Amino acid sequence: MEFDTIAAISTPMGEGAIAIVRLSGDEAFLIADKIFKGPGNKKLSTQASHTIHYGHIVDPKTDVVVEEVMVSLMRGPRTFTREDVVEINCHGGLVSVNRVLQLILNQGARLAEPGEFTKRAFLNGRIDLSQAEAVMDLIRAKTDRAMNVAMGQMEGRLSKLIQKLRQEILETLAHVEVNIDYPEYDDVEEMTHKMLIEKAQFVREEIVKLIRTSEQGKILREGLSTVIIGRPNVGKSSLLNSLVHENKAIVTDIPGTTRDVIEEYVNVRGVPLRLVDTAGIRETEDIVERIGVERSRKVLKEADLILLVLNYSDELTIEDENLFKAVEGMDVIVIINKTDLPEKINMDKVKALAKDHKIVSTSLLQEQGVDELEEAISTLFFAGSIESGDMTYVSNSRHVALLNQALNAIEEAINGVEMGTPIDIVQIDLTRTWELLGEITGDTVHESLIDQLFSQFCLGK
Amino acid sequence: MEFDTIAAISTPMGEGAIAIVRLSGDEAFLIADKIFKGPGNKKLSTQASHTIHYGHIVDPKTDVVVEEVMVSLMRGPRTFTREDVVEINCHGGLVSVNRVLQLILNQGARLAEPGEFTKRAFLNGRIDLSQAEAVMDLIRAKTDRAMNVAMGQMEGRLSKLIQKLRQEILETLAHVEVNIDYPEYDDVEEMTHKMLIEKAQFVREEIVKLIRTSEQGKILREGLSTVIIGRPNVGKSSLLNSLVHENKAIVTDIPGTTRDVIEEYVNVRGVPLRLVDTAGIRETEDIVERIGVERSRKVLKEADLILLVLNYSDELTIEDENLFKAVEGMDVIVIINKTDLPEKINMDKVKALAKDHKIVSTSLLQEQGVDELEEAISTLFFAGSIESGDMTYVSNSRHVALLNQALNAIEEAINGVEMGTPIDIVQIDLTRTWELLGEITGDTVHESLIDQLFSQFCLGK
Repeated sequence: MEFDTIAAISTPMGEGAIAIVRLSGDEAFLIADKIFKGPGNKKLSTQASHTIHYGHIVDPKTDVVVEEVMVSLMRGPRTFTREDVVEINCHGGLVSVNRVLQLILNQGARLAEPGEFTKRAFLNGRIDLSQAEAVMDLIRAKTDRAMNVAMGQMEGRLSKLIQKLRQEILETLAHVEVNIDYPEYDDVEEMTHKMLIEKAQFVREEIVKLIRTSEQGKILREGLSTVIIGRPNVGKSSLLNSLVHENKAIVTDIPGTTRDVIEEYVNVRGVPLRLVDTAGIRETEDIVERIGVERSRKVLKEADLILLVLNYSDELTIEDENLFKAVEGMDVIVIINKTDLPEKINMDKVKALAKDHKIVSTSLLQEQGVDELEEAISTLFFAGSIESGDMTYVSNSRHVALLNQALNAIEEAINGVEMGTPIDIVQIDLTRTWELLGEITGDTVHESLIDQLFSQFCLGK
Repeated sequence: MEFDTIAAISTPMGEGAIAIVRLSGDEAFLIADKIFKGPGNKKLSTQASHTIHYGHIVDPKTDVVVEEVMVSLMRGPRTFTREDVVEINCHGGLVSVNRVLQLILNQGARLAEPGEFTKRAFLNGRIDLSQAEAVMDLIRAKTDRAMNVAMGQMEGRLSKLIQKLRQEILETLAHVEVNIDYPEYDDVEEMTHKMLIEKAQFVREEIVKLIRTSEQGKILREGLSTVIIGRPNVGKSSLLNSLVHENKAIVTDIPGTTRDVIEEYVNVRGVPLRLVDTAGIRETEDIVERIGVERSRKVLKEADLILLVLNYSDELTIEDENLFKAVEGMDVIVIINKTDLPEKINMDKVKALAKDHKIVSTSLLQEQGVDELEEAISTLFFAGSIESGDMTYVSNSRHVALLNQALNAIEEAINGVEMGTPIDIVQIDLTRTWELLGEITGDTVHESLIDQLFSQFCLGK
């Protein structure tokens, strides 16, 4: 494919040691040459690919030196976009890097849209759509595990699985076609039905497996929405603080957004916990009172994990029992805190209330039991399975939606065969499954969707 | 010199398209090799200098792929630090770039201190101290002009001037020494005095010239502290808005700091205006009332520029006259706003009150006169002189302090000669001048100062 030459600042905006202006396209080398002055007047366009050159960026109109730079030259197709790429490595000042970009735009490059470099990598066939989406997931990953998932997807792990399934469907369709066209045997219809059912069921099972990974995938990507509840003075603040302090907080605030509910991220053994309403806990210790409030109910309802804190050194109250009722059917870990003090709680009753929920005893004051709690959280959600790193997780909501649609389509096909629907109708459902899966990798996808997807990328990527 | 191998993330922390981990030192190539997997198992340490290599960063313990990278190899001394440098160009995710850094540190590199790469460039003799400081000024520059000044200093413009002066002093000292040791002529003492006075006066004048540039230099670096004053409803908010909207605001807030006074930066024809107490103006229009308040007086007193706004369509009041009194002796531009309405103001009286201050007429409602105002601001502070770009500005307060001390020392020397002080006493003052100037370039400077200076740099630089 052939495109114009695009340019953008590819490093985060902020004071840093290095800032990079990236150019991609046929004219990349020529444009860079117009504003580059190297020792001995060397021209970038005559240099070998994958080499680095020291020099200055000079305003061609005024001859004023704008930056001292290192320029990286990479000729397509051995580049990220498969086009000629120039990366101008500046000292990192906002003004000077903007000036360098401006000069490049003056020489005929166009300002890249968000995600346009990655979009070109996709349009030029270097990566498929799910790999492109993984690039963004990698950038936004908040834990090692999320990063591993994104890395696996970027390396094409999901793509290969999807391609395998699509190939199965395609071969099935071809077989059916052949069988219909050349009915040499009497039992051709029966055989076709049998083969169809087998293949379709295989595809359905694989899709179901993938969908099953999506819950964990979503957690890895977006964090596990976690709410700490308990009566006043049972130690909710201490629990929050020890989770935040023991584990480095990933994001303490989300700038630029106004939210009712303040969130904090902590990384617990690779599980990103999104601690909800931490401000409320820190400030007032009154979440119990607010349980009755509509908003708090909503927070509870949307939570993936409830940490229910009880006081070891106090008797169970009706309030505690109400808390257990409020979180029925959810993922709960019961924490018996203040084990350094004399036992007053009725542990048998706690066990009865907790049912299958894991119970962990802690003395947060004496920093005891936090390890066990973290272990419980990790086990509850991953059972150690992700550690191997070779599993394929679906984490992108677009992919999940497409898999669910594909599941519906393949089930229609299976039902159709079982109910004796004419084969050419079944073929439509199979083809639909094949198309839906293709949308994940971008093999069958509309241009408008592509535009929309890449526009969510950050600038310069 | 020989140092250990250091590493740091050299791009700003944030979501971006590219993040760079930089390594510098003898072991840089070997360490990179331990975690790099390229096509065909190629080793980075056997590759040519100034080349770029595609591959993956792999955890050597688990064989897990952590990142897809482009690695830039540069062998010393043709590098920023004059040491072997490896730059690992990652996809820009915080987690993965931190993981890459961690792996590198595990292989034996040490985490670089802030500014340590630049410090090595200094210690290895690639740049002097004033050039190193200019690197940081370049990163922090808020306007093109500030950037040009930093760039000039980085290219060694100030260094060359200082070196010239030091050379003059050194030659003078040598001459004096020779004259004293070989008094072959009768008038040797008179000649020595004459020569000393001439040389010292030349050095003094050059130092004075440099100090004179420092006010503009400081403005370029730190912005021109600007306060808008005027009675309610004269158009202060409109003025603020048109300055901010016509010119792109550079910084709208300083995150992470709590300040009484809210500031906003705008770039007016290369002059960075730091608009003080803009929140006050925007919210209340009551700065006149608050003129009596201690804090507002302080703000006024510290201002570099006052924009005094009057209402063309209203008579002058005692409040207006009080404003003129409050800003006596300061740099003031008088703005007569609302010229679209009938004239009621007594312009003769305004001219009498304004004295030498520039008067600009505007109708901010009809967007008239803002150009003239910007011209007035630019003229007031630069008189167009900086446009050429070939002037040397002193902008660093450390340099200004040293120049002032050097000025004192050279004046002591001149006084000494004039008062007939023995030559060896004068020599001490001359030597002191020579040393103080040397501290600017780092030729005569203590190690603790060097440590302190570089610690103000950003990480990874």
